Amino acid sequence: MTKIKLALCQMNVIDDKQTNINKASSMIARSVDENADFIVLPEMFNCPYSNDKFIEYCEEEHASYTLDNISKLARANDVYILAGSIPEKENDKLYNTSYLFDKTGEIIAKHRKMHLFDIDVKDKITFKESDVLTAGDEFTVVDTEFGRIGIGICYDVRFVELARVMVEEGALILFYPGAFNMTTGPAHWELLFRSRALDNQVFCVGVAPALNMDASYHSYGHSIVTNPWGEVITEADEKEDLIFCEIDLDEIKKVREEIPLLKNKRNDLYEVIQK
Amino acid sequence: MTKIKLALCQMNVIDDKQTNINKASSMIARSVDENADFIVLPEMFNCPYSNDKFIEYCEEEHASYTLDNISKLARANDVYILAGSIPEKENDKLYNTSYLFDKTGEIIAKHRKMHLFDIDVKDKITFKESDVLTAGDEFTVVDTEFGRIGIGICYDVRFVELARVMVEEGALILFYPGAFNMTTGPAHWELLFRSRALDNQVFCVGVAPALNMDASYHSYGHSIVTNPWGEVITEADEKEDLIFCEIDLDEIKKVREEIPLLKNKRNDLYEVIQK
Repeated sequence: MTKIKLALCQMNVIDDKQTNINKASSMIARSVDENADFIVLPEMFNCPYSNDKFIEYCEEEHASYTLDNISKLARANDVYILAGSIPEKENDKLYNTSYLFDKTGEIIAKHRKMHLFDIDVKDKITFKESDVLTAGDEFTVVDTEFGRIGIGICYDVRFVELARVMVEEGALILFYPGAFNMTTGPAHWELLFRSRALDNQVFCVGVAPALNMDASYHSYGHSIVTNPWGEVITEADEKEDLIFCEIDLDEIKKVREEIPLLKNKRNDLYEVIQK
Repeated sequence: MTKIKLALCQMNVIDDKQTNINKASSMIARSVDENADFIVLPEMFNCPYSNDKFIEYCEEEHASYTLDNISKLARANDVYILAGSIPEKENDKLYNTSYLFDKTGEIIAKHRKMHLFDIDVKDKITFKESDVLTAGDEFTVVDTEFGRIGIGICYDVRFVELARVMVEEGALILFYPGAFNMTTGPAHWELLFRSRALDNQVFCVGVAPALNMDASYHSYGHSIVTNPWGEVITEADEKEDLIFCEIDLDEIKKVREEIPLLKNKRNDLYEVIQK
Protein backbone atom coordinates (compact mmCIF):
# COMPACT_ATOMS: atom_id res chain seq x y z
CA MET A 1 0.00 0.00 0.00
CA THR A 2 1.63 3.25 -1.06
CA LYS A 3 -1.28 5.67 -0.64
CA ILE A 4 -2.08 6.98 2.82
CA LYS A 5 -4.84 9.33 3.90
CA LEU A 6 -3.54 11.51 6.71
CA ALA A 7 -5.74 13.44 9.14
CA LEU A 8 -4.17 16.49 10.80
CA CYS A 9 -6.05 17.50 13.95
CA GLN A 10 -5.27 21.17 14.51
CA MET A 11 -7.20 21.36 17.74
CA ASN A 12 -7.65 24.26 20.09
CA VAL A 13 -5.91 23.28 23.32
CA ILE A 14 -7.23 24.88 26.49
CA ASP A 15 -6.48 24.74 30.20
CA ASP A 16 -8.64 21.69 30.90
CA LYS A 17 -7.33 18.20 30.26
CA GLN A 18 -10.68 16.46 29.93
CA THR A 19 -11.94 19.01 27.41
CA ASN A 20 -8.75 18.55 25.39
CA ILE A 21 -9.14 14.78 25.38
CA ASN A 22 -12.77 15.16 24.35
CA LYS A 23 -11.76 17.46 21.53
CA ALA A 24 -9.10 15.00 20.34
CA SER A 25 -11.66 12.19 20.53
CA SER A 26 -14.20 14.05 18.43
CA MET A 27 -11.61 14.96 15.80
CA ILE A 28 -10.50 11.34 15.70
CA ALA A 29 -14.12 10.25 15.22
CA ARG A 30 -14.55 12.68 12.33
CA SER A 31 -11.28 11.48 10.80
CA VAL A 32 -12.48 7.89 10.98
CA ASP A 33 -15.73 8.92 9.28
CA GLU A 34 -13.60 10.30 6.45
CA ASN A 35 -11.64 7.05 6.19
CA ALA A 36 -8.33 8.42 7.39
CA ASP A 37 -5.55 5.83 7.68
CA PHE A 38 -3.29 7.77 9.98
CA ILE A 39 -4.43 10.43 12.44
CA VAL A 40 -2.04 12.98 13.93
CA LEU A 41 -2.59 15.12 17.02
CA PRO A 42 -0.53 18.21 17.83
CA GLU A 43 2.33 18.73 20.26
CA MET A 44 1.04 18.99 23.83
CA PHE A 45 -2.51 18.22 22.73
CA ASN A 46 -3.75 17.63 26.27
CA CYS A 47 -1.97 20.51 28.00
CA PRO A 48 -1.38 24.26 27.59
CA TYR A 49 2.09 25.05 26.36
CA SER A 50 3.76 26.40 29.49
CA ASN A 51 6.30 25.04 31.90
CA ASP A 52 4.03 25.23 34.96
CA LYS A 53 1.26 23.37 33.12
CA PHE A 54 3.68 20.64 32.03
CA ILE A 55 4.26 19.96 35.74
CA GLU A 56 0.55 20.07 36.56
CA TYR A 57 -0.65 17.95 33.61
CA CYS A 58 2.11 15.33 33.39
CA GLU A 59 1.30 11.61 33.42
CA GLU A 60 3.28 8.42 33.73
CA GLU A 61 3.09 6.16 30.71
CA HIS A 62 2.04 3.04 32.64
CA ALA A 63 -0.91 4.85 34.22
CA SER A 64 -1.82 7.53 31.73
CA TYR A 65 -5.44 8.56 31.49
CA THR A 66 -4.73 10.43 28.25
CA LEU A 67 -2.88 7.58 26.56
CA ASP A 68 -5.48 5.02 27.65
CA ASN A 69 -8.13 7.08 25.92
CA ILE A 70 -6.16 7.35 22.69
CA SER A 71 -5.27 3.65 22.74
CA LYS A 72 -8.93 2.70 22.99
CA LEU A 73 -9.81 4.96 20.07
CA ALA A 74 -7.08 3.43 17.89
CA ARG A 75 -8.25 -0.09 18.70
CA ALA A 76 -11.96 0.63 18.41
CA ASN A 77 -11.53 2.35 15.06
CA ASP A 78 -8.76 0.18 13.64
CA VAL A 79 -6.60 3.20 12.84
CA TYR A 80 -3.08 4.50 13.50
CA ILE A 81 -2.92 7.50 15.83
CA LEU A 82 0.17 9.57 16.45
CA ALA A 83 -0.65 11.19 19.77
CA GLY A 84 1.18 14.48 19.15
CA SER A 85 2.79 14.79 22.53
CA ILE A 86 2.02 14.98 26.22
CA PRO A 87 4.06 15.94 29.27
CA GLU A 88 5.40 12.55 30.37
CA LYS A 89 6.80 11.85 33.83
CA GLU A 90 9.29 9.13 34.67
CA ASN A 91 11.39 8.94 37.83
CA ASP A 92 10.82 12.59 38.71
CA LYS A 93 11.85 13.73 35.25
CA LEU A 94 9.51 15.33 32.74
CA TYR A 95 9.69 14.76 28.98
CA ASN A 96 7.80 16.10 25.98
CA THR A 97 6.81 12.75 24.50
CA SER A 98 4.99 11.57 21.39
CA TYR A 99 3.33 8.13 21.27
CA LEU A 100 2.41 6.18 18.18
CA PHE A 101 -0.49 3.72 18.49
CA ASP A 102 -1.09 1.04 15.89
CA LYS A 103 -4.53 -0.26 14.89
CA THR A 104 -4.65 -2.61 17.85
CA GLY A 105 -4.10 0.24 20.27
CA GLU A 106 -0.54 -0.83 21.11
CA ILE A 107 2.21 1.77 21.55
CA ILE A 108 4.69 0.87 18.80
CA ALA A 109 6.96 3.91 19.20
CA LYS A 110 7.61 6.80 21.52
CA HIS A 111 9.73 9.85 20.87
CA ARG A 112 10.96 12.14 23.58
CA LYS A 113 11.76 15.59 22.22
CA MET A 114 15.49 15.54 21.60
CA HIS A 115 16.17 19.29 21.30
CA LEU A 116 14.69 21.50 23.98
CA PHE A 117 13.31 24.83 22.93
CA ASP A 118 15.36 27.53 24.64
CA ILE A 119 14.97 30.70 22.66
CA ASP A 120 15.10 34.40 23.38
CA VAL A 121 14.14 36.57 20.42
CA LYS A 122 14.44 40.13 21.74
CA ASP A 123 11.09 41.71 22.64
CA LYS A 124 9.21 38.93 20.85
CA ILE A 125 9.38 35.43 22.31
CA THR A 126 11.29 33.89 25.21
CA PHE A 127 10.80 30.28 26.28
CA LYS A 128 13.07 27.92 28.16
CA GLU A 129 11.79 24.35 28.11
CA SER A 130 14.95 23.10 29.76
CA ASP A 131 13.91 24.75 33.03
CA VAL A 132 11.41 21.93 33.45
CA LEU A 133 11.84 19.30 30.76
CA THR A 134 14.56 16.73 30.13
CA ALA A 135 15.60 15.97 26.55
CA GLY A 136 15.22 12.51 25.06
CA ASP A 137 18.25 10.68 23.76
CA GLU A 138 16.74 8.26 21.23
CA PHE A 139 16.19 8.41 17.48
CA THR A 140 12.67 7.22 16.69
CA VAL A 141 12.12 5.27 13.48
CA VAL A 142 9.42 2.60 13.26
CA ASP A 143 7.74 0.33 10.74
CA THR A 144 4.05 0.71 10.02
CA GLU A 145 1.93 -1.13 7.47
CA PHE A 146 2.42 1.88 5.18
CA GLY A 147 6.20 1.92 5.44
CA ARG A 148 8.84 3.17 7.78
CA ILE A 149 8.38 6.55 9.47
CA GLY A 150 10.39 8.85 11.69
CA ILE A 151 9.18 11.04 14.55
CA GLY A 152 10.55 14.30 15.92
CA ILE A 153 8.88 17.06 17.90
CA CYS A 154 8.75 20.77 17.03
CA TYR A 155 12.23 22.29 17.59
CA ASP A 156 13.69 18.92 16.47
CA VAL A 157 12.74 19.92 12.89
CA ARG A 158 15.49 22.55 12.85
CA PHE A 159 18.29 20.00 13.07
CA VAL A 160 19.41 18.57 9.75
CA GLU A 161 21.30 15.69 11.34
CA LEU A 162 18.23 14.22 13.04
CA ALA A 163 16.24 14.16 9.80
CA ARG A 164 19.16 12.65 7.91
CA VAL A 165 19.64 9.89 10.49
CA MET A 166 15.95 8.96 10.30
CA VAL A 167 16.00 8.94 6.49
CA GLU A 168 19.17 6.89 6.34
CA GLU A 169 17.41 4.39 8.55
CA GLY A 170 14.69 4.22 5.92
CA ALA A 171 12.02 6.67 7.08
CA LEU A 172 9.75 7.76 4.19
CA ILE A 173 7.62 10.19 6.19
CA LEU A 174 8.91 12.46 8.95
CA PHE A 175 6.29 13.54 11.49
CA TYR A 176 6.93 16.55 13.65
CA PRO A 177 4.05 17.48 15.95
CA GLY A 178 4.96 21.06 16.78
CA ALA A 179 3.85 24.38 18.16
CA PHE A 180 5.78 27.21 16.59
CA ASN A 181 4.88 30.70 17.79
CA MET A 182 3.79 33.90 16.10
CA THR A 183 7.41 34.99 15.60
CA THR A 184 9.20 31.85 14.44
CA GLY A 185 6.09 30.44 12.74
CA PRO A 186 5.66 33.02 9.98
CA ALA A 187 9.44 33.21 9.55
CA HIS A 188 10.45 29.55 9.55
CA TRP A 189 7.69 26.90 9.85
CA GLU A 190 6.93 26.41 6.15
CA LEU A 191 10.59 26.85 5.16
CA LEU A 192 11.70 24.12 7.56
CA PHE A 193 9.06 21.59 6.47
CA ARG A 194 9.80 22.27 2.81
CA SER A 195 13.55 21.95 3.27
CA ARG A 196 13.51 18.82 5.45
CA ALA A 197 11.33 17.23 2.73
CA LEU A 198 13.48 18.44 -0.18
CA ASP A 199 16.85 17.69 1.40
CA ASN A 200 15.81 14.13 2.12
CA GLN A 201 13.22 13.56 -0.62
CA VAL A 202 10.56 12.39 1.82
CA PHE A 203 7.16 13.59 3.01
CA CYS A 204 7.09 15.78 6.11
CA VAL A 205 4.07 16.35 8.32
CA GLY A 206 3.68 19.04 10.97
CA VAL A 207 0.63 19.23 13.22
CA ALA A 208 0.16 22.16 15.59
CA PRO A 209 -2.42 23.34 18.09
CA ALA A 210 -4.69 26.12 16.82
CA LEU A 211 -3.94 29.71 17.82
CA ASN A 212 -5.58 30.37 21.18
CA MET A 213 -5.31 34.04 22.11
CA ASP A 214 -6.42 33.22 25.67
CA ALA A 215 -3.35 31.05 26.21
CA SER A 216 0.01 32.39 27.39
CA TYR A 217 1.74 30.75 24.41
CA HIS A 218 0.41 31.68 20.99
CA SER A 219 0.69 28.75 18.59
CA TYR A 220 1.10 29.59 14.90
CA GLY A 221 -1.03 26.62 13.81
CA HIS A 222 -0.52 26.07 10.06
CA SER A 223 -0.45 22.27 10.20
CA ILE A 224 1.29 21.22 7.03
CA VAL A 225 2.28 18.41 4.66
CA THR A 226 5.24 18.80 2.27
CA ASN A 227 6.27 16.41 -0.49
CA PRO A 228 9.64 15.04 -1.70
CA TRP A 229 9.88 17.82 -4.32
CA GLY A 230 9.81 20.37 -1.47
CA GLU A 231 6.28 21.62 -2.13
CA VAL A 232 3.55 22.39 0.40
CA ILE A 233 0.63 20.13 -0.52
CA THR A 234 -1.66 20.94 2.41
CA GLU A 235 -1.55 23.75 4.94
CA ALA A 236 -4.04 25.04 7.49
CA ASP A 237 -4.29 28.61 8.70
CA GLU A 238 -4.11 29.44 12.42
CA LYS A 239 -7.69 28.46 13.34
CA GLU A 240 -8.99 25.14 14.67
CA ASP A 241 -9.36 22.78 11.75
CA LEU A 242 -9.28 19.15 10.76
CA ILE A 243 -7.53 18.73 7.43
CA PHE A 244 -6.93 15.67 5.30
CA CYS A 245 -4.15 14.90 2.88
CA GLU A 246 -3.66 11.82 0.74
CA ILE A 247 -0.03 11.10 -0.04
CA ASP A 248 1.48 8.50 -2.36
CA LEU A 249 4.82 7.10 -1.23
CA ASP A 250 5.63 6.16 -4.85
CA GLU A 251 6.39 9.85 -5.40
CA ILE A 252 9.53 9.37 -3.34
CA LYS A 253 10.89 6.83 -5.78
CA LYS A 254 10.14 9.09 -8.75
CA VAL A 255 11.85 12.15 -7.27
CA ARG A 256 14.87 10.10 -6.20
CA GLU A 257 15.26 8.84 -9.76
CA GLU A 258 15.02 12.36 -11.16
CA ILE A 259 17.51 13.94 -8.75
CA PRO A 260 19.44 11.11 -7.09
CA LEU A 261 20.48 13.10 -4.03
CA LEU A 262 20.90 10.21 -1.66
CA LYS A 263 22.93 8.32 -4.24
CA ASN A 264 25.04 11.38 -5.14
CA LYS A 265 25.74 12.11 -1.47
CA ARG A 266 29.49 11.72 -0.90
CA ASN A 267 29.49 8.98 1.70
CA ASP A 268 33.21 8.57 1.04
CA LEU A 269 33.86 12.11 2.32
CA TYR A 270 31.35 12.73 5.11
CA GLU A 271 28.65 11.04 7.11
CA VAL A 272 26.14 11.83 9.82
CA ILE A 273 27.02 9.35 12.54
CA GLN A 274 25.03 8.34 15.60
CA LYS A 275 27.00 8.16 18.82
CA MET B 1 35.38 44.71 9.89
CA THR B 2 31.96 43.08 9.98
CA LYS B 3 30.30 44.86 7.03
CA ILE B 4 30.99 43.62 3.52
CA LYS B 5 29.73 44.97 0.22
CA LEU B 6 29.22 42.05 -2.14
CA ALA B 7 28.97 42.37 -5.93
CA LEU B 8 27.10 39.57 -7.72
CA CYS B 9 27.97 39.48 -11.43
CA GLN B 10 25.08 37.76 -13.15
CA MET B 11 26.70 37.86 -16.56
CA ASN B 12 25.45 36.50 -19.85
CA VAL B 13 27.84 33.70 -20.80
CA ILE B 14 28.18 32.99 -24.52
CA ASP B 15 30.17 30.62 -26.71
CA ASP B 16 33.27 32.81 -26.89
CA LYS B 17 35.83 32.75 -24.13
CA GLN B 18 37.36 36.18 -24.79
CA THR B 19 33.96 37.86 -24.84
CA ASN B 20 33.12 36.17 -21.52
CA ILE B 21 36.36 37.35 -19.95
CA ASN B 22 35.75 40.86 -21.26
CA LYS B 23 32.25 40.82 -19.79
CA ALA B 24 33.58 39.64 -16.41
CA SER B 25 36.25 42.35 -16.55
CA SER B 26 33.76 45.11 -17.24
CA MET B 27 31.46 43.93 -14.44
CA ILE B 28 34.43 43.81 -12.08
CA ALA B 29 35.34 47.38 -13.11
CA ARG B 30 31.79 48.57 -12.38
CA SER B 31 31.86 46.75 -9.04
CA VAL B 32 35.09 48.50 -8.11
CA ASP B 33 33.54 51.84 -9.05
CA GLU B 34 30.77 51.05 -6.58
CA ASN B 35 33.30 50.21 -3.86
CA ALA B 36 32.53 46.51 -3.64
CA ASP B 37 34.71 44.57 -1.21
CA PHE B 38 34.09 41.11 -2.60
CA ILE B 39 33.14 40.36 -6.21
CA VAL B 40 31.57 37.05 -7.22
CA LEU B 41 31.38 35.61 -10.74
CA PRO B 42 29.00 32.78 -11.71
CA GLU B 43 29.63 29.08 -12.20
CA MET B 44 31.34 28.45 -15.57
CA PHE B 45 31.64 32.18 -16.24
CA ASN B 46 34.05 31.70 -19.14
CA CYS B 47 32.36 28.73 -20.83
CA PRO B 48 28.91 27.60 -21.99
CA TYR B 49 27.35 25.03 -19.69
CA SER B 50 27.71 21.83 -21.71
CA ASN B 51 29.97 18.83 -21.51
CA ASP B 52 31.52 19.30 -24.95
CA LYS B 53 32.34 22.93 -24.18
CA PHE B 54 33.96 21.97 -20.87
CA ILE B 55 36.40 19.88 -22.92
CA GLU B 56 36.97 22.65 -25.46
CA TYR B 57 37.35 25.51 -22.96
CA CYS B 58 39.29 23.83 -20.17
CA GLU B 59 42.53 25.34 -18.85
CA GLU B 60 45.31 24.20 -16.56
CA GLU B 61 45.70 26.27 -13.43
CA HIS B 62 49.41 26.96 -13.87
CA ALA B 63 48.86 28.33 -17.38
CA SER B 64 45.33 29.68 -17.33
CA TYR B 65 44.58 32.67 -19.50
CA THR B 66 41.28 33.18 -17.71
CA LEU B 67 42.74 33.02 -14.19
CA ASP B 68 45.64 35.28 -15.11
CA ASN B 69 43.16 37.92 -16.20
CA ILE B 70 41.15 37.69 -12.99
CA SER B 71 44.29 37.71 -10.83
CA LYS B 72 45.46 40.94 -12.47
CA LEU B 73 42.08 42.57 -11.88
CA ALA B 74 42.10 41.59 -8.19
CA ARG B 75 45.60 42.99 -7.71
CA ALA B 76 45.07 46.13 -9.77
CA ASN B 77 41.85 46.97 -7.96
CA ASP B 78 42.82 45.75 -4.48
CA VAL B 79 39.67 43.61 -4.21
CA TYR B 80 38.68 40.02 -3.48
CA ILE B 81 37.30 38.12 -6.49
CA LEU B 82 35.65 34.72 -6.30
CA ALA B 83 36.01 33.51 -9.87
CA GLY B 84 32.77 31.51 -10.02
CA SER B 85 34.14 28.47 -11.76
CA ILE B 86 35.93 27.37 -14.90
CA PRO B 87 36.54 23.97 -16.49
CA GLU B 88 39.92 23.06 -15.01
CA LYS B 89 42.20 20.38 -16.44
CA GLU B 90 44.80 18.47 -14.48
CA ASN B 91 46.46 15.22 -15.57
CA ASP B 92 43.83 14.50 -18.21
CA LYS B 93 41.01 14.99 -15.74
CA LEU B 94 38.49 17.82 -15.88
CA TYR B 95 37.04 19.56 -12.84
CA ASN B 96 34.47 22.30 -12.26
CA THR B 97 36.65 24.57 -10.15
CA SER B 98 36.17 27.85 -8.31
CA TYR B 99 39.15 30.06 -7.46
CA LEU B 100 39.30 32.74 -4.79
CA PHE B 101 41.74 35.61 -5.36
CA ASP B 102 42.74 37.94 -2.54
CA LYS B 103 43.55 41.63 -2.99
CA THR B 104 47.10 40.86 -4.07
CA GLY B 105 45.86 38.63 -6.87
CA GLU B 106 46.98 35.43 -5.13
CA ILE B 107 44.83 32.31 -5.25
CA ILE B 108 44.00 31.67 -1.58
CA ALA B 109 41.47 28.88 -2.12
CA LYS B 110 40.14 26.59 -4.81
CA HIS B 111 37.06 24.42 -4.68
CA ARG B 112 36.43 21.58 -7.08
CA LYS B 113 32.71 20.79 -7.31
CA MET B 114 32.21 17.90 -4.92
CA HIS B 115 28.82 16.64 -6.12
CA LEU B 116 28.39 16.17 -9.84
CA PHE B 117 25.08 17.12 -11.36
CA ASP B 118 23.54 13.97 -12.81
CA ILE B 119 19.83 14.52 -13.08
CA ASP B 120 17.01 13.27 -15.25
CA VAL B 121 13.70 15.01 -14.65
CA LYS B 122 11.33 13.36 -17.13
CA ASP B 123 10.65 15.46 -20.24
CA LYS B 124 12.23 18.50 -18.60
CA ILE B 125 15.94 18.43 -17.92
CA THR B 126 18.64 15.79 -18.28
CA PHE B 127 22.30 16.50 -17.62
CA LYS B 128 25.15 14.18 -16.68
CA GLU B 129 28.26 16.07 -15.64
CA SER B 130 29.98 12.87 -14.59
CA ASP B 131 30.31 11.87 -18.26
CA VAL B 132 33.09 14.43 -18.52
CA LEU B 133 33.94 15.89 -15.12
CA THR B 134 35.64 14.42 -12.08
CA ALA B 135 34.39 15.38 -8.62
CA GLY B 136 36.59 17.17 -6.12
CA ASP B 137 37.30 15.60 -2.75
CA GLU B 138 38.16 18.61 -0.59
CA PHE B 139 36.15 20.81 1.75
CA THR B 140 36.98 24.46 1.06
CA VAL B 141 37.04 26.85 3.99
CA VAL B 142 39.38 29.83 4.02
CA ASP B 143 40.13 32.97 6.03
CA THR B 144 39.68 36.38 4.47
CA GLU B 145 40.08 39.80 6.06
CA PHE B 146 36.29 39.79 6.54
CA GLY B 147 36.13 36.44 8.28
CA ARG B 148 36.11 32.78 7.38
CA ILE B 149 34.12 31.66 4.35
CA GLY B 150 33.17 28.38 2.73
CA ILE B 151 32.85 27.60 -0.98
CA GLY B 152 30.67 25.07 -2.79
CA ILE B 153 29.44 24.96 -6.39
CA CYS B 154 25.81 24.68 -7.56
CA TYR B 155 24.59 21.10 -6.90
CA ASP B 156 26.79 21.10 -3.76
CA VAL B 157 24.17 23.37 -2.14
CA ARG B 158 21.71 20.48 -1.93
CA PHE B 159 23.83 18.54 0.54
CA VAL B 160 23.28 19.46 4.18
CA GLU B 161 26.44 17.73 5.36
CA LEU B 162 28.77 19.86 3.25
CA ALA B 163 27.28 23.11 4.58
CA ARG B 164 27.42 21.83 8.14
CA VAL B 165 31.07 20.82 7.83
CA MET B 166 31.99 24.26 6.50
CA VAL B 167 30.05 26.02 9.27
CA GLU B 168 31.53 23.82 11.98
CA GLU B 169 34.92 24.84 10.66
CA GLY B 170 33.90 28.43 11.23
CA ALA B 171 32.56 29.64 7.88
CA LEU B 172 30.28 32.69 8.27
CA ILE B 173 29.37 33.04 4.60
CA LEU B 174 28.76 30.15 2.21
CA PHE B 175 29.32 30.97 -1.45
CA TYR B 176 27.80 28.72 -4.10
CA PRO B 177 28.37 29.92 -7.66
CA GLY B 178 25.68 27.95 -9.47
CA ALA B 179 23.62 27.53 -12.59
CA PHE B 180 20.26 26.00 -11.80
CA ASN B 181 17.97 25.44 -14.76
CA MET B 182 14.42 26.47 -15.63
CA THR B 183 13.00 23.36 -13.90
CA THR B 184 14.96 23.08 -10.67
CA GLY B 185 15.51 26.84 -10.41
CA PRO B 186 11.90 27.94 -9.85
CA ALA B 187 11.29 24.86 -7.69
CA HIS B 188 14.35 24.80 -5.45
CA TRP B 189 16.94 27.60 -5.83
CA GLU B 190 15.51 30.10 -3.34
CA LEU B 191 14.40 27.34 -0.95
CA LEU B 192 17.90 25.86 -0.82
CA PHE B 193 19.67 29.17 -0.21
CA ARG B 194 17.15 30.11 2.47
CA SER B 195 17.43 26.77 4.23
CA ARG B 196 21.22 26.46 4.10
CA ALA B 197 21.32 29.95 5.69
CA LEU B 198 18.65 29.23 8.31
CA ASP B 199 19.89 25.76 9.27
CA ASN B 200 23.38 27.10 9.88
CA GLN B 201 22.62 30.72 10.78
CA VAL B 202 25.05 32.10 8.22
CA PHE B 203 24.85 34.19 5.06
CA CYS B 204 24.58 32.31 1.76
CA VAL B 205 25.42 33.72 -1.65
CA GLY B 206 24.51 32.22 -5.01
CA VAL B 207 25.70 33.73 -8.28
CA ALA B 208 24.43 32.38 -11.60
CA PRO B 209 24.87 33.16 -15.28
CA ALA B 210 21.99 35.09 -16.84
CA LEU B 211 19.38 33.20 -18.86
CA ASN B 212 20.66 32.89 -22.43
CA MET B 213 17.97 31.40 -24.68
CA ASP B 214 20.56 30.86 -27.41
CA ALA B 215 22.52 28.46 -25.21
CA SER B 216 21.76 24.74 -24.95
CA TYR B 217 21.51 25.00 -21.15
CA HIS B 218 19.05 27.56 -19.82
CA SER B 219 20.30 29.07 -16.57
CA TYR B 220 17.67 30.27 -14.12
CA GLY B 221 19.77 33.27 -13.04
CA HIS B 222 18.28 34.71 -9.82
CA SER B 223 21.60 35.41 -8.10
CA ILE B 224 20.76 35.65 -4.43
CA VAL B 225 21.88 36.52 -0.91
CA THR B 226 20.14 35.04 2.14
CA ASN B 227 20.70 35.97 5.78
CA PRO B 228 21.04 33.96 9.01
CA TRP B 229 17.29 34.37 9.72
CA GLY B 230 16.56 32.54 6.44
CA GLU B 231 15.39 35.60 4.52
CA VAL B 232 16.21 36.57 0.94
CA ILE B 233 17.85 39.99 1.15
CA THR B 234 18.82 40.39 -2.50
CA GLU B 235 17.71 38.49 -5.58
CA ALA B 236 18.06 39.16 -9.30
CA ASP B 237 15.65 38.02 -11.99
CA GLU B 238 16.84 35.95 -14.95
CA LYS B 239 18.39 38.80 -16.99
CA GLU B 240 21.98 39.99 -17.05
CA ASP B 241 22.54 42.19 -14.04
CA LEU B 242 25.12 43.39 -11.58
CA ILE B 243 23.67 43.55 -8.09
CA PHE B 244 25.16 44.70 -4.83
CA CYS B 245 24.39 43.64 -1.29
CA GLU B 246 25.89 44.90 1.94
CA ILE B 247 25.87 42.31 4.71
CA ASP B 248 26.81 42.68 8.36
CA LEU B 249 28.38 39.61 9.94
CA ASP B 250 27.26 40.82 13.39
CA GLU B 251 23.78 39.62 12.44
CA ILE B 252 25.05 36.07 12.80
CA LYS B 253 25.89 36.60 16.45
CA LYS B 254 22.47 38.14 17.14
CA VAL B 255 20.50 35.31 15.50
CA ARG B 256 22.61 32.69 17.25
CA GLU B 257 21.84 34.30 20.60
CA GLU B 258 18.11 34.38 19.85
CA ILE B 259 17.84 30.78 18.64
CA PRO B 260 20.99 28.98 19.78
CA LEU B 261 20.80 26.21 17.19
CA LEU B 262 24.48 25.38 17.05
CA LYS B 263 24.63 25.28 20.85
CA ASN B 264 21.41 23.21 21.13
CA LYS B 265 22.64 20.73 18.52
CA ARG B 266 23.02 17.34 20.21
CA ASN B 267 26.71 16.73 19.64
CA ASP B 268 26.47 13.95 22.21
CA LEU B 269 24.06 12.00 19.97
CA TYR B 270 25.12 12.71 16.39
CA GLU B 271 27.78 14.45 14.35
CA VAL B 272 28.65 15.13 10.75
CA ILE B 273 32.12 13.66 10.43
CA GLN B 274 34.68 14.13 7.67
CA LYS B 275 36.37 11.00 6.45
